[in-house]
Amino acid sequence: MNTTTTLRTIEWLGDLDGCVSMIDQTLLPQELKMLECRDPEAIWEAIKVLRVRGAPAIGIAAAMGVVLGVRGFDGTDRAAFTAKLDEVCDFLASARPTAVNLFWALDRMKRTALGAGDDVGAVKLVLLAEAKLIRDEDAAMCRAIGQVGQSLIPAGAGVLTHCNAGGLATAEYGTALAPMYAAHEAGRSFRVYADETRPLLQGSRLTAWELSRAGIDVVVNCDNMAGLLMKEGKIDLVITGSDRIAANGDAANKIGTYSVAVLAKAHDIPFYVAAPSSTFDFACPDGSAIPIEERSPAEIRHGFGRKTAPDDVSCYCPAFDVTPAELIRGIITERGLIQPVGRAEISTLLAEKSG
Amino acid sequence: MNTTTTLRTIEWLGDLDGCVSMIDQTLLPQELKMLECRDPEAIWEAIKVLRVRGAPAIGIAAAMGVVLGVRGFDGTDRAAFTAKLDEVCDFLASARPTAVNLFWALDRMKRTALGAGDDVGAVKLVLLAEAKLIRDEDAAMCRAIGQVGQSLIPAGAGVLTHCNAGGLATAEYGTALAPMYAAHEAGRSFRVYADETRPLLQGSRLTAWELSRAGIDVVVNCDNMAGLLMKEGKIDLVITGSDRIAANGDAANKIGTYSVAVLAKAHDIPFYVAAPSSTFDFACPDGSAIPIEERSPAEIRHGFGRKTAPDDVSCYCPAFDVTPAELIRGIITERGLIQPVGRAEISTLLAEKSG
Repeated sequence: MNTTTTLRTIEWLGDLDGCVSMIDQTLLPQELKMLECRDPEAIWEAIKVLRVRGAPAIGIAAAMGVVLGVRGFDGTDRAAFTAKLDEVCDFLASARPTAVNLFWALDRMKRTALGAGDDVGAVKLVLLAEAKLIRDEDAAMCRAIGQVGQSLIPAGAGVLTHCNAGGLATAEYGTALAPMYAAHEAGRSFRVYADETRPLLQGSRLTAWELSRAGIDVVVNCDNMAGLLMKEGKIDLVITGSDRIAANGDAANKIGTYSVAVLAKAHDIPFYVAAPSSTFDFACPDGSAIPIEERSPAEIRHGFGRKTAPDDVSCYCPAFDVTPAELIRGIITERGLIQPVGRAEISTLLAEKSG
Repeated sequence: MNTTTTLRTIEWLGDLDGCVSMIDQTLLPQELKMLECRDPEAIWEAIKVLRVRGAPAIGIAAAMGVVLGVRGFDGTDRAAFTAKLDEVCDFLASARPTAVNLFWALDRMKRTALGAGDDVGAVKLVLLAEAKLIRDEDAAMCRAIGQVGQSLIPAGAGVLTHCNAGGLATAEYGTALAPMYAAHEAGRSFRVYADETRPLLQGSRLTAWELSRAGIDVVVNCDNMAGLLMKEGKIDLVITGSDRIAANGDAANKIGTYSVAVLAKAHDIPFYVAAPSSTFDFACPDGSAIPIEERSPAEIRHGFGRKTAPDDVSCYCPAFDVTPAELIRGIITERGLIQPVGRAEISTLLAEKSG
């Protein structure tokens, strides 16, 4: 048995006067530094520039950002408080468009406020408790995803992952990496291949960092090497996270995931998605309804300190792509494994959420 | 009609006392600087660290390096001269293992010396003329490849390429890019998507630079975006170069080419390889016989000027992969288009070389 020391990626420190503490992921792997946010603008900026990233962690950050935005509300006018709350939620919702967990968390905070009575002071405390609960539930869901998915990783396996859907993308422990942590804790040895994940290199900067820190055998590869790894027989399965899953199982995730899924299919390698139920968006019938964020060409041209393309050249900069359900062998959720992946199987397992 | 101002990527300046002038490609796109090499050690280093790269250009550099290595030979002892020549060739052959053009050019220089008589002074002049001829023939072959391949690019097409098989990879004009230059000269408009090509970014640094310099519409994408581009219908065909083609048509090229070929197949997009006949190696029955260079993990961990992966993490670093013939729609050579790609079709077109 191995033990895993988990990261506290994001948490609330103290009481209502406290702050949000998060790992500034733009500094990894060079420096592990905690950032303290005391207003929603700091949370918005942290989400925007990816100091905090990963769909579940963005949701937690947004929920805590709501508390930061309303705790200073002066007075007892409940309607004015609600207006302020809506304003803060709208602001935070504008940080990034793709991860549904962001909107899910903001909706949950609004619903919580709605049911929390008329006393503004009390509502603030309820909202803080709810934000902390979202974090704690996320940690528990990640543990459950790990338990559901760990049997997919036999001893000696080669597992490919893309981007970072690890502890750094969640409260702790991760989604795609959770089955790996659980298999490691169960004492099995295996190797993880981490796509470096251009343009922002979440694979080489974050996944490699957190897995090696946990004592898991990890090898970094450039994204374009995934096909050769599969051809050489080094990959037994692929597990990635997701930022939003449509009702039919089409899953948006970091740009490049679709290519990996096509390559896996061509090599007859099972491709799994791991995500908590908050990642499902039943308002999207299929992947074509998921909005895809475009990012700045500078991330491609000047990614890490030096110019790597002519300044005036055009760049194609989608942040995400959508993997169609037919390329996904199974979806690992905290409630169980959805396999095969289809509208009926999804709504059966997650029925209460689809209403 | 458009005109293309070609680059003089590598050439010999002056007479036997002259030097080799080449673009130092490690400095692009920041700086266009010519490097002058006056001994074979400088050529070896330039090949090793990719100041000059691309299979045809490496062949030219090696041929010129032979002249640099023997021109200072003192005396008239023909046998001793041959021993010196062999020593220089062995040294230059050790620079990089995969591109067959390197070995092809060295063999050609040795055969030329063998047939050049007993006068050492005269042999030196013959070798210089041969090295210049290899350069000029390469330029002519690239023009011919362009003519053979240009009709594959209709107006309005989207063409994906990987790495740089352009003017910078040859004497001038390129292999994979030659049909694009020829189609441009014929007045057709189309768009080239350039995979940035990790780890050394020859696509974003070199292909984007030389195509935009020539007035061709070029968009840089991260390697992992190729699948999405294809899914979105933006790619009508793929053209890449090759560093060595086996007798059955299996083609080694920059790492990531295999992934692109699999993705193209999955999207029913034709995948072409463009290469001069010197790239065929009939001593390799198939791709499994092609040696694949491994490069340093530092190119992945520190490729952009700052650390992008933990120092102690393992990296997977193949410089090339092999695309099986069945994924290649056609091979564009200076002697014609080989399509379909098979042992018989290849030996029919290139028969005199297979003896």
